[in-house]
Amino acid sequence: MTTAAVPPSVTLLIETFAELPGIGPKTASRLAFFLLRGKSELALRLADALQGLVNNTRFCSTCYNVTETDPCPICADPLRDHHLVCVIEEPMDLLSLERTENYHGVYHVLHGALSPLEGIFAEDLKIAELEKRVREGEIREIILATNPTSEGDYTAAYLVQRLKPLGARMTRLGRGLPVGGDLEYADAVTLSRALEARQEL
Amino acid sequence: MTTAAVPPSVTLLIETFAELPGIGPKTASRLAFFLLRGKSELALRLADALQGLVNNTRFCSTCYNVTETDPCPICADPLRDHHLVCVIEEPMDLLSLERTENYHGVYHVLHGALSPLEGIFAEDLKIAELEKRVREGEIREIILATNPTSEGDYTAAYLVQRLKPLGARMTRLGRGLPVGGDLEYADAVTLSRALEARQEL
Repeated sequence: MTTAAVPPSVTLLIETFAELPGIGPKTASRLAFFLLRGKSELALRLADALQGLVNNTRFCSTCYNVTETDPCPICADPLRDHHLVCVIEEPMDLLSLERTENYHGVYHVLHGALSPLEGIFAEDLKIAELEKRVREGEIREIILATNPTSEGDYTAAYLVQRLKPLGARMTRLGRGLPVGGDLEYADAVTLSRALEARQEL
Repeated sequence: MTTAAVPPSVTLLIETFAELPGIGPKTASRLAFFLLRGKSELALRLADALQGLVNNTRFCSTCYNVTETDPCPICADPLRDHHLVCVIEEPMDLLSLERTENYHGVYHVLHGALSPLEGIFAEDLKIAELEKRVREGEIREIILATNPTSEGDYTAAYLVQRLKPLGARMTRLGRGLPVGGDLEYADAVTLSRALEARQEL
């Protein structure tokens, strides 16, 4: 072919969509051409929403959850139990736990799990920040709600080794969770049971 | 819960992602939270690419393909056969045909197929514009490459009825195509054979 069939701005959008997880070149093309079919308004709203995400969100300086205010609404809520901290890998895991409507403590988002093979070490996660909270705050119990995977279990074991000497009670979510699964896919009932059946470490 | 777990700007992005085809609320959440994990740069590039799509693309005033210049590079290419017009439903179908490297004519994009049940009639598609090209231009042959579905076949039959009296030769892509399929998923070899085996109408 002597002529380019796809304009550069369409190619650029397809390539950028394809950088998102789970979106291959074919899906990226479909999305771009969908937006070309009289969906300018949606394309511009999506652009605005993306810019809004970047401009308006930050991490809570206490729990490192995503927030528009600092401290985040959960850390600022006097009705939550600030002596009970649930440690999670990702902000999305917080949503799964909130959906149980069975947890009234606060959170600490690690932003990942330890994985020496992938080069993710303690200093890459919000672990020093968690230790600081434990040392400074009056934390009664730390619930380790990392994913029930080898990385999640390793992270939990590391946290026990590092934080248990500081005196707080440490528990791990009950193994009602299917092993090898991902916390964000757990249904509310299973997660709720796992919260109730949490085990002393 | 007394506190909102997801900031408004994240909710807005999730809801907007979910308006895209094939992206449900769960995938939309994953995409939004993926972008929150230190992917501000990607989020802003995606926003720019979306705005670029809206600001830089239009439809070619001859063939109605998506383009940044008018006429589009294919319509402006003196090496293409401008007496041979391939009629397709969507701009993406053009990519499939270009990928065969076996078609050197020009195109006409209908932007859909007739579907009386869904309320899509001739005046909703670029059919009057095609008729104008046939009446004004020196078109030797019109290849109907609408999808091999009931809507695509109905559209082809309608075009034959409307345009054949104007004198151009009209052909339909050979039925090497799997019936009930979608043109954009056809592999290059199958499409290439279908081009060669096109049938007189």
